[in-house]
Amino acid sequence: MSILHIASFRWKPEVAEIDIARLTDALNEMRAGIPEIRSYVVGPNLHLRAGGADYGVAAILDDGAGLDTYLDHVDHKAVYEKYLGWMIAERSAVQLPISAGAFDA
Amino acid sequence: MSILHIASFRWKPEVAEIDIARLTDALNEMRAGIPEIRSYVVGPNLHLRAGGADYGVAAILDDGAGLDTYLDHVDHKAVYEKYLGWMIAERSAVQLPISAGAFDA
Repeated sequence: MSILHIASFRWKPEVAEIDIARLTDALNEMRAGIPEIRSYVVGPNLHLRAGGADYGVAAILDDGAGLDTYLDHVDHKAVYEKYLGWMIAERSAVQLPISAGAFDA
Repeated sequence: MSILHIASFRWKPEVAEIDIARLTDALNEMRAGIPEIRSYVVGPNLHLRAGGADYGVAAILDDGAGLDTYLDHVDHKAVYEKYLGWMIAERSAVQLPISAGAFDA
Protein backbone atom coordinates (compact mmCIF):
# COMPACT_ATOMS: atom_id res chain seq x y z
CA MET A 1 0.00 0.00 0.00
CA SER A 2 1.43 3.36 -1.05
CA ILE A 3 0.54 6.84 0.12
CA LEU A 4 -1.05 9.59 -1.97
CA HIS A 5 -0.30 12.95 -0.39
CA ILE A 6 -2.41 15.83 -1.71
CA ALA A 7 -2.18 19.48 -0.74
CA SER A 8 -3.99 22.54 -2.04
CA PHE A 9 -3.20 26.16 -1.38
CA ARG A 10 -4.84 29.55 -1.55
CA TRP A 11 -2.36 32.35 -2.07
CA LYS A 12 -2.11 35.71 -0.40
CA PRO A 13 -3.30 38.59 -2.61
CA GLU A 14 0.24 39.86 -3.19
CA VAL A 15 1.42 36.62 -4.82
CA ALA A 16 2.29 37.22 -8.50
CA GLU A 17 2.54 34.89 -11.49
CA ILE A 18 6.33 34.99 -11.35
CA ASP A 19 6.30 33.81 -7.73
CA ILE A 20 4.14 30.84 -8.70
CA ALA A 21 6.36 29.97 -11.67
CA ARG A 22 9.47 30.10 -9.49
CA LEU A 23 7.82 27.91 -6.87
CA THR A 24 6.87 25.32 -9.50
CA ASP A 25 10.41 25.25 -10.87
CA ALA A 26 11.87 24.94 -7.38
CA LEU A 27 9.52 22.09 -6.40
CA ASN A 28 10.27 20.14 -9.58
CA GLU A 29 13.99 20.67 -9.12
CA MET A 30 13.70 19.56 -5.47
CA ARG A 31 11.77 16.46 -6.47
CA ALA A 32 14.54 15.34 -8.82
CA GLY A 33 16.78 14.96 -5.77
CA ILE A 34 14.34 13.01 -3.57
CA PRO A 35 13.93 9.48 -4.97
CA GLU A 36 11.43 8.59 -2.23
CA ILE A 37 8.92 10.67 -4.23
CA ARG A 38 7.65 8.01 -6.66
CA SER A 39 5.35 10.34 -8.60
CA TYR A 40 4.91 14.08 -8.34
CA VAL A 41 2.74 16.72 -9.92
CA VAL A 42 2.54 20.36 -8.87
CA GLY A 43 1.11 23.47 -10.42
CA PRO A 44 -1.55 26.14 -10.56
CA ASN A 45 -5.15 24.94 -10.43
CA LEU A 46 -6.44 24.38 -13.96
CA HIS A 47 -9.73 25.84 -12.67
CA LEU A 48 -11.89 23.43 -14.64
CA ARG A 49 -14.61 23.97 -12.03
CA ALA A 50 -15.72 27.01 -10.10
CA GLY A 51 -14.59 27.72 -6.57
CA GLY A 52 -11.31 25.89 -6.38
CA ALA A 53 -8.04 26.72 -4.66
CA ASP A 54 -5.03 28.35 -6.35
CA TYR A 55 -2.37 25.65 -6.43
CA GLY A 56 -1.98 21.93 -5.90
CA VAL A 57 0.64 19.33 -5.03
CA ALA A 58 0.19 15.56 -5.35
CA ALA A 59 2.91 13.09 -4.42
CA ILE A 60 3.05 9.30 -4.22
CA LEU A 61 5.31 7.75 -1.61
CA ASP A 62 5.87 4.14 -0.60
CA ASP A 63 4.90 4.76 3.01
CA GLY A 64 4.85 7.23 5.88
CA ALA A 65 8.64 7.12 6.15
CA GLY A 66 8.90 8.20 2.53
CA LEU A 67 6.48 11.04 3.20
CA ASP A 68 8.56 12.18 6.17
CA THR A 69 11.74 11.99 4.07
CA TYR A 70 10.09 14.26 1.49
CA LEU A 71 8.47 16.80 3.78
CA ASP A 72 11.37 16.99 6.24
CA HIS A 73 14.04 17.06 3.50
CA VAL A 74 16.47 19.97 3.68
CA ASP A 75 15.64 20.83 0.06
CA HIS A 76 11.90 20.89 0.85
CA LYS A 77 12.50 23.14 3.82
CA ALA A 78 14.59 25.39 1.56
CA VAL A 79 11.76 25.67 -0.98
CA TYR A 80 9.35 26.44 1.83
CA GLU A 81 11.58 29.15 3.29
CA LYS A 82 12.54 30.77 -0.01
CA TYR A 83 9.29 30.45 -1.98
CA LEU A 84 6.27 28.70 -0.56
CA GLY A 85 5.99 29.85 3.04
CA TRP A 86 5.21 33.53 2.57
CA MET A 87 2.75 32.82 -0.27
CA ILE A 88 0.27 30.73 1.74
CA ALA A 89 -3.04 32.14 2.92
CA GLU A 90 -4.58 28.67 3.46
CA ARG A 91 -3.32 25.12 3.10
CA SER A 92 -5.28 21.87 3.14
CA ALA A 93 -3.56 18.48 3.01
CA VAL A 94 -4.58 14.82 3.20
CA GLN A 95 -2.91 11.44 2.89
CA LEU A 96 -4.83 8.55 1.35
CA PRO A 97 -3.84 4.89 0.85
CA ILE A 98 -3.46 3.68 -2.74
CA SER A 99 -2.50 0.34 -4.26
CA ALA A 100 0.28 0.06 -6.82
CA GLY A 101 -1.19 0.00 -10.31
CA ALA A 102 -4.65 0.96 -9.07
CA PHE A 103 -4.31 4.74 -9.30
CA ASP A 104 -3.13 5.94 -12.69
CA ALA A 105 -4.37 7.67 -15.81
CA MET B 1 -2.95 14.65 -20.89
CA SER B 2 -5.32 13.51 -18.16
CA ILE B 3 -6.73 15.41 -15.21
CA LEU B 4 -6.03 14.74 -11.54
CA HIS B 5 -8.84 16.23 -9.44
CA ILE B 6 -8.07 16.48 -5.73
CA ALA B 7 -10.37 17.71 -2.98
CA SER B 8 -9.94 17.86 0.77
CA PHE B 9 -12.56 18.55 3.40
CA ARG B 10 -12.84 19.63 6.99
CA TRP B 11 -15.96 18.37 8.67
CA LYS B 12 -18.41 20.15 10.92
CA PRO B 13 -18.04 19.18 14.59
CA GLU B 14 -21.26 17.16 14.58
CA VAL B 15 -20.02 14.74 11.91
CA ALA B 16 -19.65 11.22 13.35
CA GLU B 17 -17.62 8.19 12.26
CA ILE B 18 -20.74 6.51 10.91
CA ASP B 19 -21.46 9.51 8.66
CA ILE B 20 -17.94 9.30 7.23
CA ALA B 21 -18.21 5.54 6.68
CA ARG B 22 -21.56 5.94 4.90
CA LEU B 23 -20.12 8.71 2.70
CA THR B 24 -17.16 6.54 1.72
CA ASP B 25 -19.43 3.62 0.83
CA ALA B 26 -21.72 5.91 -1.17
CA LEU B 27 -18.85 7.50 -3.10
CA ASN B 28 -17.33 4.14 -3.98
CA GLU B 29 -20.71 2.81 -5.06
CA MET B 30 -21.29 5.94 -7.15
CA ARG B 31 -17.88 5.60 -8.77
CA ALA B 32 -18.68 2.07 -9.96
CA GLY B 33 -21.40 3.58 -12.17
CA ILE B 34 -19.33 6.40 -13.70
CA PRO B 35 -16.78 4.90 -16.12
CA GLU B 36 -15.38 8.36 -16.90
CA ILE B 37 -13.64 8.13 -13.50
CA ARG B 38 -10.47 6.26 -14.50
CA SER B 39 -9.05 6.03 -10.99
CA TYR B 40 -10.59 6.98 -7.66
CA VAL B 41 -9.57 7.02 -4.05
CA VAL B 42 -11.56 8.52 -1.20
CA GLY B 43 -11.36 8.29 2.54
CA PRO B 44 -10.48 9.80 5.89
CA ASN B 45 -7.10 11.48 6.15
CA LEU B 46 -4.49 8.97 7.34
CA HIS B 47 -3.05 11.87 9.36
CA LEU B 48 0.54 10.89 8.75
CA ARG B 49 1.48 14.53 9.33
CA ALA B 50 0.19 17.15 11.71
CA GLY B 51 -2.35 19.75 10.71
CA GLY B 52 -4.15 18.08 7.86
CA ALA B 53 -7.77 18.12 6.77
CA ASP B 54 -10.33 15.42 7.65
CA TYR B 55 -11.11 13.71 4.36
CA GLY B 56 -9.81 13.46 0.81
CA VAL B 57 -10.96 12.62 -2.69
CA ALA B 58 -8.67 12.04 -5.68
CA ALA B 59 -9.97 11.21 -9.14
CA ILE B 60 -8.32 10.79 -12.52
CA LEU B 61 -10.34 11.75 -15.59
CA ASP B 62 -9.40 11.86 -19.26
CA ASP B 63 -10.27 15.53 -19.61
CA GLY B 64 -12.49 18.36 -18.43
CA ALA B 65 -15.54 16.76 -20.02
CA GLY B 66 -14.94 13.65 -17.93
CA LEU B 67 -14.63 15.78 -14.82
CA ASP B 68 -17.93 17.49 -15.61
CA THR B 69 -19.58 14.11 -16.22
CA TYR B 70 -18.42 12.98 -12.77
CA LEU B 71 -19.21 16.09 -10.77
CA ASP B 72 -22.51 16.84 -12.51
CA HIS B 73 -23.65 13.19 -12.49
CA VAL B 74 -27.06 12.57 -10.94
CA ASP B 75 -25.49 9.96 -8.65
CA HIS B 76 -22.83 12.46 -7.49
CA LYS B 77 -25.50 15.03 -6.77
CA ALA B 78 -27.42 12.36 -4.82
CA VAL B 79 -24.36 11.58 -2.68
CA TYR B 80 -23.87 15.31 -2.07
CA GLU B 81 -27.46 15.84 -1.05
CA LYS B 82 -27.80 12.73 1.13
CA TYR B 83 -24.34 12.55 2.71
CA LEU B 84 -21.61 15.03 1.82
CA GLY B 85 -23.27 18.41 1.70
CA TRP B 86 -24.26 18.89 5.34
CA MET B 87 -20.92 17.52 6.59
CA ILE B 88 -18.69 20.18 5.01
CA ALA B 89 -17.16 23.00 7.05
CA GLU B 90 -14.45 23.73 4.43
CA ARG B 91 -13.61 22.33 1.01
CA SER B 92 -10.50 22.87 -1.10
CA ALA B 93 -10.17 21.46 -4.62
CA VAL B 94 -7.67 21.65 -7.46
CA GLN B 95 -7.25 20.12 -10.91
CA LEU B 96 -3.75 19.31 -12.18
CA PRO B 97 -2.59 17.91 -15.54
CA ILE B 98 -0.99 14.46 -15.50
CA SER B 99 0.43 12.22 -18.20
CA ALA B 100 -0.70 8.62 -18.58
CA GLY B 101 1.79 6.30 -16.90
CA ALA B 102 3.62 9.17 -15.23
CA PHE B 103 1.61 9.34 -12.01
CA ASP B 104 1.35 5.99 -10.26
CA ALA B 105 2.62 4.12 -7.23
